[in-house]
Amino acid sequence: MDRLEQQMDFCREIDKEKEVFRQTFLCSGNRRENDAEHAWHMALMAVVLQEYANEDIDLLKVMTMLLIHDIVEIDAGDTYAYDVEGLKSQAEREEKAATRIFGLLPEDQGTYMLDLFHEFEEGETAEARFAKALDNVQPVMQNDASGGKDWREKGIRLSQAIERQKKTARGSQVLWDQVSKPMIRKNIELGNIVGDVPLEEI
Amino acid sequence: MDRLEQQMDFCREIDKEKEVFRQTFLCSGNRRENDAEHAWHMALMAVVLQEYANEDIDLLKVMTMLLIHDIVEIDAGDTYAYDVEGLKSQAEREEKAATRIFGLLPEDQGTYMLDLFHEFEEGETAEARFAKALDNVQPVMQNDASGGKDWREKGIRLSQAIERQKKTARGSQVLWDQVSKPMIRKNIELGNIVGDVPLEEI
Repeated sequence: MDRLEQQMDFCREIDKEKEVFRQTFLCSGNRRENDAEHAWHMALMAVVLQEYANEDIDLLKVMTMLLIHDIVEIDAGDTYAYDVEGLKSQAEREEKAATRIFGLLPEDQGTYMLDLFHEFEEGETAEARFAKALDNVQPVMQNDASGGKDWREKGIRLSQAIERQKKTARGSQVLWDQVSKPMIRKNIELGNIVGDVPLEEI
Repeated sequence: MDRLEQQMDFCREIDKEKEVFRQTFLCSGNRRENDAEHAWHMALMAVVLQEYANEDIDLLKVMTMLLIHDIVEIDAGDTYAYDVEGLKSQAEREEKAATRIFGLLPEDQGTYMLDLFHEFEEGETAEARFAKALDNVQPVMQNDASGGKDWREKGIRLSQAIERQKKTARGSQVLWDQVSKPMIRKNIELGNIVGDVPLEEI
């Protein structure tokens, strides 16, 4: 198949990401957001907040990583951050999806995207750490803005939030200390997050 | 106001872009898409299709431009490509919006974003020309995939499509010759676009 045809097939296929919905509400609380909107938001947040990465980062790489990191959910679906059973099979389902979807591209580009997806998942490079920090900060920001709507619906507890947010400080100490942590504290005080462990643990 | 607070205000404000809907349908035809989804899709298309830009481009700049180019529509609304009356006041409405929304950022970042938005609008750099090409190719691709749904609903004529698509070849001759042009021709044959001028004109 022609190179350009393969590329256009991929461009059409990823349109489906606009129909994969996440648990997080928009800041307005009007509805839940989808993966494409989430990825767009974080790629722009990477531009605006780049100065807070713990390490030097290649911004282009962070943005591309964020733009592609949820494409696998076209096949594998969104696995909620606090869904214990779903999280067990998540890696296998997502790997299969990555092989299929990035496999639509010409080989050089497919390999590049697959490697970038794995790099994000492993979270061991400066870019992956910062991307993962943003992947945590963005939903906290929206949850806080919407009055803790998703946290309240799910009855999320502080111990769960702490576990989930460990990755934020690894990518950006500033965003953890000055954004996510104060927002989580505020939402415990408001009763939107259940304080099952002492506030000092955060 | 604190720098990080200004940045977070901007990050929250742009969330509203997810609620600005465009005329173009998703490939599935299920619903119209919004500006955030559109921007996400094009930033990734820029990565995949970068080799077809007429000139050397700075990819990071193209992607950032595409991610921000519709933020003004939070205030100014989406102006349909074929809305003659709306197009007259579009520039003024969008300039006012750009000043307000990018003005939420710290001055250095606000100026950077405003300049980038103007660069896109003026369309006179290699990056802006390629970004504008993608801004034309993406809706044609989705319209074609959805069976020409938006074209049919609006009764779009070939002469209008030609006028709109002039910018594609300026940014990417390949994408015009091998993607948009064949798709438009096919949709005239299918009766999805009205052939009011001879097919040879395209």
